[in-house]
Amino acid sequence: MNHPYAFSDALRRPLPDAMIAALRARFGERFSTAQAVRDHHGRDESPFPAIPPDAVVYAHSTEEVAEVVRLCAQDKVPLIPFGVGSSLEGHLLAVQGGVSIDLSQMNKVLAVNAEDLTVTVQAGVTRKQLNEELKSTGLFFPIDPGADASLGGMSATRASGTNAVRYGTMKENVLGLTVVTADGKVIRTATRAKKSSAGYDLTRLFIGSEGTLGVITEVTVKLYPVPEAVSAAVVNFPTMADAVDTVIQTIQLGVPVARSEFLCDQTIRAINAHSKTTLREAPTLFFEFHGTESSVKEQAELVQQLAREHGGQDFEWASRPEDRTRLWNARHNAYFACLQMRPGCRAISTDTCVPISRLADSISGARRILDTAKFPTMLLGHVGDGNFHAVLLIDPDDAQEAEEAERLNDEIVRLAQSMDGTCTGEHGVGLHKIGFLEEEAGADAIDLMRRIKRALDPDNILNPGKIFRLD
Amino acid sequence: MNHPYAFSDALRRPLPDAMIAALRARFGERFSTAQAVRDHHGRDESPFPAIPPDAVVYAHSTEEVAEVVRLCAQDKVPLIPFGVGSSLEGHLLAVQGGVSIDLSQMNKVLAVNAEDLTVTVQAGVTRKQLNEELKSTGLFFPIDPGADASLGGMSATRASGTNAVRYGTMKENVLGLTVVTADGKVIRTATRAKKSSAGYDLTRLFIGSEGTLGVITEVTVKLYPVPEAVSAAVVNFPTMADAVDTVIQTIQLGVPVARSEFLCDQTIRAINAHSKTTLREAPTLFFEFHGTESSVKEQAELVQQLAREHGGQDFEWASRPEDRTRLWNARHNAYFACLQMRPGCRAISTDTCVPISRLADSISGARRILDTAKFPTMLLGHVGDGNFHAVLLIDPDDAQEAEEAERLNDEIVRLAQSMDGTCTGEHGVGLHKIGFLEEEAGADAIDLMRRIKRALDPDNILNPGKIFRLD
Repeated sequence: MNHPYAFSDALRRPLPDAMIAALRARFGERFSTAQAVRDHHGRDESPFPAIPPDAVVYAHSTEEVAEVVRLCAQDKVPLIPFGVGSSLEGHLLAVQGGVSIDLSQMNKVLAVNAEDLTVTVQAGVTRKQLNEELKSTGLFFPIDPGADASLGGMSATRASGTNAVRYGTMKENVLGLTVVTADGKVIRTATRAKKSSAGYDLTRLFIGSEGTLGVITEVTVKLYPVPEAVSAAVVNFPTMADAVDTVIQTIQLGVPVARSEFLCDQTIRAINAHSKTTLREAPTLFFEFHGTESSVKEQAELVQQLAREHGGQDFEWASRPEDRTRLWNARHNAYFACLQMRPGCRAISTDTCVPISRLADSISGARRILDTAKFPTMLLGHVGDGNFHAVLLIDPDDAQEAEEAERLNDEIVRLAQSMDGTCTGEHGVGLHKIGFLEEEAGADAIDLMRRIKRALDPDNILNPGKIFRLD
Repeated sequence: MNHPYAFSDALRRPLPDAMIAALRARFGERFSTAQAVRDHHGRDESPFPAIPPDAVVYAHSTEEVAEVVRLCAQDKVPLIPFGVGSSLEGHLLAVQGGVSIDLSQMNKVLAVNAEDLTVTVQAGVTRKQLNEELKSTGLFFPIDPGADASLGGMSATRASGTNAVRYGTMKENVLGLTVVTADGKVIRTATRAKKSSAGYDLTRLFIGSEGTLGVITEVTVKLYPVPEAVSAAVVNFPTMADAVDTVIQTIQLGVPVARSEFLCDQTIRAINAHSKTTLREAPTLFFEFHGTESSVKEQAELVQQLAREHGGQDFEWASRPEDRTRLWNARHNAYFACLQMRPGCRAISTDTCVPISRLADSISGARRILDTAKFPTMLLGHVGDGNFHAVLLIDPDDAQEAEEAERLNDEIVRLAQSMDGTCTGEHGVGLHKIGFLEEEAGADAIDLMRRIKRALDPDNILNPGKIFRLD
């Protein structure tokens, strides 16, 4: 049996000695071909084993990125942008070899325009770092994938997180990007105006393009005033369906919840073990409300009432900032908490998103599908958006488990797609969902994507092999 | 002196007789080459005189659109999608001849998914029609350009309007599109999932592409629950600066106003004349607040306080639905009201949008620039987004006035661009802003747009000559 995560690198292209020499001369200690460095840059949080790039360059500026791209373009050498390595679908594997360009040292906050509610950062700035640096401004940046990802990476995968139900995803929150194109030119995709009808939406074209159309080096995003009042709540339900129905009604009534997260009993167990919490091991919702004192109170009362009608109990409030921080840290660490439930495992995380009216069917269907699994599985997610994750903990060396996990993943995705939903709400396609995307988008839409790719990157040097098959 | 609105159609391509015969045979009375019909389809609300297409087809379905596109593709004949003809920058002029494909009879609401807060419509459905058909659902669609535009046209120009400050633009509110590509294929750009990371964002690529990349035939948009409480207010200010500063502070404090519109004294005069209102002829803000009873009250009190600090007076409330409707109808008709201040005139409308901190400078700068004008000018706009319009009423037959208007327009745009703003917040580029876009985006970004255009429409049949010069 072929291991389903054993990716071929038969298309690996050579890295010419002259290019290695040129990069080493130019970047000195910021250029590396050490095996450990290459391994680190050839994998992500997906279950795929590393396929290392041939070399790694640590860039410090947009101009340096452009230099590397121009060198790669000359010799048609692949180039893969790297942020913190937290992607989940094999985005970083160097399936055609080449150079990993690490942007983590491009971590400067370039311009806080507090009066405009915008900030411009280098692509390597992480979401936590940004919010730390914004603390004195009274503003915050809401997008929060589980990992402390970089804003460049979050742009490249069209990431979101727990706050998306209120604040939107990277798609809605990026105002403009600085991008190095495949021929080493530097473009800025938009002004800082809040809205624009000025030509093709290049910003949105690069958001979610997973490094295949250009290297994002700077990101301008929207900021929000820290709400006057914030309140969070945890509530347990007798069944998963009760929890999910509570969220569906919350959304349908237009309650502007900031966060509404579902966690199954197994996820809560993992969190308790990992984060030393004592949450009741039952289907659970985490809510957070943002607004003025009175609007937060109003939202909370309405949601509490809806929850009660669905058997919600043990409503616990976290109004003190430190309690809320503990709660949301626990939520953000849920993926890693799950991983620790099976030492040595790797996780496959599904990422379907469906119209809200189909959420209950989608999530209970996923539960039924997973009930047959021989390994631990958990459900959690951003249910207010119709998006949830099934986490499948498999032994990465066991091809049979991997095969089974892929089969279950397939079923969950197909169920979501049958409900006019998508195979990926926020993680992206990478290597792992190429087949799903083909079915979901259809051959003619994929053909448009291919034409765009060929038009912008004719030699296919930018993160080749990701999102779709080019040939 | 060449008249600045005299566009050449030297690039006009022939419409083969065989194609005329084929279209007539296929579409019967829904095919026309009558001069009046052609004239109507070769112009918009811009000051440009009509450049008529060679023929007009009224399509009834996506499949019919695809048939027309395939016929045009065969003979490399240009094709221009037409909604209601309310665009403002010469989008519809047939500068290379060809066929206008009128989608106004594709006006069916296809699927109201109330429980998902989405609706799918044919591209010819107008915003007013849609909200009329949604009345019984308790939901509404907020995007409201001045005209009763079609949702296809609004998608194609990335339109917005008075509600954008709270609900976003077409960019944020379209979930997915059905599009006929240049080779007559039909694609659906996305599922109905609220968020997705599934490949390139084709939805956003077509939004704002002004008919140059494909013909939008169906649109799925987000809906919102009609707020529990709505309240509107009108307030006058001693100076324009006072009004604008009130809005800036409202936004910077994060007050979730639904609408915040500025109208100068001249605009109010025009509205009073046109809509039989008796508003005081002074710099004025129209506000609207959406939410629960208590949150609306809270927002209104806060904004009232801010307005008072800036000398706001005569705070008038419109809480009854019929009063609000009268108020917003007056606002939406402001453009047409302005036009009537000078019989026989045509208007140039600027459309700059700047970061909110620069709004006061941008709008007072525009006022100074316009003070030299020899014809009537007005200022109004969606100031909560940093977007406003200067309306310049010129005699369309007077080349000197047109030249002067263009010079003033230039200055206003350049001022906005010097503030990291854009030449167009919501109207689009069309023919009129090709030069501005070039400067704003830069040659390398325009080059990417050109490559995308060539990749998706190699024979340049889709609304050729718009957004950028291709050669």
